[in-house]
Amino acid sequence: MLPGTSFHNHQVKGQNFGCFVSLVGEVGELSEIFQWKGEVPRGLPGWKEEEKQHLQEELYDVLLYLVRFSDVCGVDLSKAALRKMELNAIKYPVKLCKGSSRK
Amino acid sequence: MLPGTSFHNHQVKGQNFGCFVSLVGEVGELSEIFQWKGEVPRGLPGWKEEEKQHLQEELYDVLLYLVRFSDVCGVDLSKAALRKMELNAIKYPVKLCKGSSRK
Amino acid sequence: MLPGTSFHNHQVKGQNFGCFVSLVGEVGELSEIFQWKGEVPRGLPGWKEEEKQHLQEELYDVLLYLVRFSDVCGVDLSKAALRKMELNAIKYPVKLCKGSSRK
Amino acid sequence: MLPGTSFHNHQVKGQNFGCFVSLVGEVGELSEIFQWKGEVPRGLPGWKEEEKQHLQEELYDVLLYLVRFSDVCGVDLSKAALRKMELNAIKYPVKLCKGSSRK
Repeated sequence: MLPGTSFHNHQVKGQNFGCFVSLVGEVGELSEIFQWKGEVPRGLPGWKEEEKQHLQEELYDVLLYLVRFSDVCGVDLSKAALRKMELNAIKYPVKLCKGSSRK
Repeated sequence: MLPGTSFHNHQVKGQNFGCFVSLVGEVGELSEIFQWKGEVPRGLPGWKEEEKQHLQEELYDVLLYLVRFSDVCGVDLSKAALRKMELNAIKYPVKLCKGSSRK
Repeated sequence: MLPGTSFHNHQVKGQNFGCFVSLVGEVGELSEIFQWKGEVPRGLPGWKEEEKQHLQEELYDVLLYLVRFSDVCGVDLSKAALRKMELNAIKYPVKLCKGSSRK
Repeated sequence: MLPGTSFHNHQVKGQNFGCFVSLVGEVGELSEIFQWKGEVPRGLPGWKEEEKQHLQEELYDVLLYLVRFSDVCGVDLSKAALRKMELNAIKYPVKLCKGSSRK
């Protein structure tokens, strides 16, 4: 599901922790996109299409290494997400979130 | 879908970039779990159940802020993932990945 | 010069890279201070004395692990700084920086 | 003392927090150097001279943005360092650190 030469290299060398180090690197690349931007208006009005495309790819790269590193750790992220959402549903009943624009 | 008081606070104050700053904080918390661990064997044999539970929660928190920040940016992460996988399928045809344990 | 049990543990276990992982953790702690702050006005007017104290300690912790990790790598940070400043002095002659408040 | 066009841009635009975002970016660049390296032997035996040079520059860049961001915050890092070392001298008397190779 998640091919890629870099990840393959980590696997072959048994450098599992390298996935985490790569994750930190990807977060760094993401931050470089924003370092001259100041506050970020919702939906990024005024950004060029190529800037948005670049951002989308960097966001995805963070996700990619997060999923890979989770897999290395034997953690099923989707189960973790479900479990936490159940806990949150108890802690934060829906009516408290009315003001949020989340769908 | 993703309630939580902290995120709600960011929304109310118009501090969208705060989501990214929180993402960096969560990656930091994740790294603190590993700072005394050395190389990470696949599946984390020898880790205690509560350590794995803690790790799972931190991994999820990174995912949570990644999804929130993507949403702030108007980026649909799942579409980004599909698009990148299509690009990768062209760049890395399946036979090259045979050695990988990815499913 | 830089004692501390955590660093000592890294040394003993030969986990040199753990210093870098700790550095990432400290940057994460630093970011947690700013996650609800929005833009940061110069000199932090309006921050409480204890907030400034906490910030000062976190900034120092980042420095601490940066110095430790540099030492592990055999890099003399002060020499690196001098060398880069010389290069910058060539690339950015003083008159270009007149507008800067840096001393 | 620390010229540079990028920092100057942050100053002019009043984007002080951009210094912190740049710091995160620099830590990301540093991590990219190590992502395929596994554990790091003290002094980096076997690394090429150009790799060490690159590393030295990235370590320095982290220092640079740390100093800049501290300055933005009105924090004197050298004072913070002295203060913390005094506290540590009380918490960790010298004899406890005998085993450390720190000079």
